[in-house]
Amino acid sequence: MKLTKDMKILIVGLGLIGGSYAKALTKKGYTVSAITKEQSSVDFALQNGYVAKATTIVDKNYIEEADLIVFALYPHTFVEWIRQYKDLIRPGTVLTDVTGIKGSVVSEVQALLPSYIEFIPAHPMAGREVSGVENADERIFIDSNYIVTPTEKNTDGAIELCLDLGRELGFSKLSTLPAQMHDEIIGFVSQLTHCIAICLMTCQTVDGLEKYTGDSFRDLTRIARLNDEMWSELFLTNKTALLKQLHLFGNEMEKMCKIIENDDREALREMMRYSTKRRELFDKRKQEN
Amino acid sequence: MKLTKDMKILIVGLGLIGGSYAKALTKKGYTVSAITKEQSSVDFALQNGYVAKATTIVDKNYIEEADLIVFALYPHTFVEWIRQYKDLIRPGTVLTDVTGIKGSVVSEVQALLPSYIEFIPAHPMAGREVSGVENADERIFIDSNYIVTPTEKNTDGAIELCLDLGRELGFSKLSTLPAQMHDEIIGFVSQLTHCIAICLMTCQTVDGLEKYTGDSFRDLTRIARLNDEMWSELFLTNKTALLKQLHLFGNEMEKMCKIIENDDREALREMMRYSTKRRELFDKRKQEN
Repeated sequence: MKLTKDMKILIVGLGLIGGSYAKALTKKGYTVSAITKEQSSVDFALQNGYVAKATTIVDKNYIEEADLIVFALYPHTFVEWIRQYKDLIRPGTVLTDVTGIKGSVVSEVQALLPSYIEFIPAHPMAGREVSGVENADERIFIDSNYIVTPTEKNTDGAIELCLDLGRELGFSKLSTLPAQMHDEIIGFVSQLTHCIAICLMTCQTVDGLEKYTGDSFRDLTRIARLNDEMWSELFLTNKTALLKQLHLFGNEMEKMCKIIENDDREALREMMRYSTKRRELFDKRKQEN
Repeated sequence: MKLTKDMKILIVGLGLIGGSYAKALTKKGYTVSAITKEQSSVDFALQNGYVAKATTIVDKNYIEEADLIVFALYPHTFVEWIRQYKDLIRPGTVLTDVTGIKGSVVSEVQALLPSYIEFIPAHPMAGREVSGVENADERIFIDSNYIVTPTEKNTDGAIELCLDLGRELGFSKLSTLPAQMHDEIIGFVSQLTHCIAICLMTCQTVDGLEKYTGDSFRDLTRIARLNDEMWSELFLTNKTALLKQLHLFGNEMEKMCKIIENDDREALREMMRYSTKRRELFDKRKQEN
């Protein structure tokens, strides 16, 4: 199954990511419509030409005419939406999402849907420290990762279509990963790092610290500015995997404390050499700085 | 005491920071000479016009004619240098340094020097993930912090001269801080963040992780690439302050684990709201992204 320009795409939820999807796909020549909660988001998206049409009403016609529906909602809102409106979806429509954790969300949504409506989950790994369609920017997809997380319920055709969507959005790195493995990896590379950034901000609150801060501290806390409603939901929905990663990291920090306490210079240097070598793997292909 | 263009400045140690000092000061019209270990560093600095003259020999004439000597060496090498060559320094010469930790280094150097030679310590908070004079770049000082850490042995004149040096180098934020407070703050904003970056790289070593990595993980581990000789020395020289910060941070991470285990959404959101608000303080004046 290929994404073609005559397909109608409906975005549900015009936030930062939904808005950036709409903007990117409209620019590419697709017909994009949107259903979202706030009238101000509808107005902004229309005024800026991100969508052909948009509404705050869950409009039967919008849903029926869509070939592909992208859900850009909070996890629990997404599941609720499916529960409430699934009967409005035309057989053969493909659904996808942008949710940052997969496990329970994917199984609940797939369990709710009839066999003739396929939901193929995806996680576009892109974001900004600001939210809302007003900050939509399709350039956040460039050089970023797009992960499709199929289950045994998914067809090859839908997986292909979903990868195609990622390619059209401008992601340079596309991959597929089983949902559970996705959640473990996200627990590490995304959620653990957000926990660290938050704790760096909350553990030491002396006045005037900002006067003595270098780029290292700024880099490690850039993501300490976050949408608390969304992130608390992501953390708690992925609780088991996240706690596992928190403990793994905590143990490593403990190990480092012991090494420093013991003045074990060689062990410390060995950790540093290993981290220096391993970090090279994580460079973007283009120069980072 | 003001820095004037007729003063002769000697840099001891042409690494990344020493080299960047030389480059910046020569550009500003100062006469800069250098003593460094490697002939290749001498050659590079001369070929690129970073210095008026340079040598690998601890040359009596270089030292005697200098009005200001900047030591850009590893902590223990700096102390050793002073121990060995202090008698070559002309009375009235002002010494400063670039060492990332202060406590024992400052007290040892000040104890070694006769009363007619003043050492005024400073910490330019700038760096790169690469080292050596070949990577010298005076632009790393722009928008960065420069901290003078005087002791009761320092005169107002030398403090003023040292701040002047920071200003001439292009630092936009100058401050003074007692050495012990400096080391506690550096233990937090610089050393703890490097420990975190290292542990993120060493605690989870599954293959292929880089395929699923977003900007958050890249940001938090940029500094995981580091000079193990220098950083192990900085960590161990500042052991007490660093361990204190490691425990402070570890306790906060423990607190967050408990909150997540207990599904305490409101406490989690409160931490996030606080971190979001506090992070604003740490923005550079210019837009970061």
